[in-house]
Amino acid sequence: MSPFQPVRLEHASRLLNHGPTVLVTSAHAGRRNVMTAAWSMPVEFTPPRIAIVIDKSTYTRELIQASGHFGLCIPGAGLAELVDAVGTLSGREVDKFQRFGLRAHPGPMTGVPLLEDGCVAWLECRRLPEPHAEHTYDTWFAEVLCAAANPRIFVDGRWSIRPDNADLHTLHHLGAGVYARADHTVSIRRT
Amino acid sequence: MSPFQPVRLEHASRLLNHGPTVLVTSAHAGRRNVMTAAWSMPVEFTPPRIAIVIDKSTYTRELIQASGHFGLCIPGAGLAELVDAVGTLSGREVDKFQRFGLRAHPGPMTGVPLLEDGCVAWLECRRLPEPHAEHTYDTWFAEVLCAAANPRIFVDGRWSIRPDNADLHTLHHLGAGVYARADHTVSIRRT
Repeated sequence: MSPFQPVRLEHASRLLNHGPTVLVTSAHAGRRNVMTAAWSMPVEFTPPRIAIVIDKSTYTRELIQASGHFGLCIPGAGLAELVDAVGTLSGREVDKFQRFGLRAHPGPMTGVPLLEDGCVAWLECRRLPEPHAEHTYDTWFAEVLCAAANPRIFVDGRWSIRPDNADLHTLHHLGAGVYARADHTVSIRRT
Repeated sequence: MSPFQPVRLEHASRLLNHGPTVLVTSAHAGRRNVMTAAWSMPVEFTPPRIAIVIDKSTYTRELIQASGHFGLCIPGAGLAELVDAVGTLSGREVDKFQRFGLRAHPGPMTGVPLLEDGCVAWLECRRLPEPHAEHTYDTWFAEVLCAAANPRIFVDGRWSIRPDNADLHTLHHLGAGVYARADHTVSIRRT
């Protein structure tokens, strides 16, 4: 049974607010794929919208172009090796879900495959077609249709980063297979 | 004397690769400003290009629109209170450099004010005008003209996050004045 709980749409952008590396999932006509992406960001809270860089060479780009949907799954630190491996293989040659033994949950709105095991959260996204930005900057805009998170680390719209959920701390790619792990917090008391 | 050292342009995108909260600096016709932004990302390595969300309500947006340039300064964890305070005041009413005692270094290419004290790095950027994305998604694209970093944490194009440079660990905004600090790394051995 999935331990994930729904995230209210007005809180969905917070899942990406701090710049985690994500896994982008996609599917079309019986094919599916998952790729690693370091470059994404929210662009709006309400309605929740995001931007993500998806290179022209990727198989994911073909699938999203065809289906109009994709998933963003935020892996926890325990998946670091998987995240790196997924980022160095192309889905054109191999079904990476099978290759890495990944269990896919169909997204409630579009059926896009979503990952939960070892993940912190997922966002189910609908492409907002922007051919110029997609072509010129490899930047794809999307609306978040639905989101869910693991309540061990994200509850009531807020992150709770603690020593006892280290396996779910987010990864932030520094380059060349080295990731920073978001494992401490600094709270500013606003006066 | 500035402790900063030049960053080669092909390494500039790595400064933003892991999603740090940044300070956006801008100036035009004798006015200047600095604001906090959680939402930015690289979109290309070579030439280095970035995207950043700048809300329509901000004074920074007016200044960038007029000048065509801005700086992205990456604060270290030691500046957490400043980062949060800068993000909660508008530059229309007050010169935040003066208010917070910030020393500005003129950018070598455009003269835009850049911050080094307590910062990890800066990127001097030229707006790539994209009125549709700016209007619809508050997303501004830019080319990085020049970048420099503090060699205590970024050397030869690579991050070096260690216990002895904790004051320079980057901040990643989780929301509501709470920041994750990137203070541990995970290295994947690629085979």
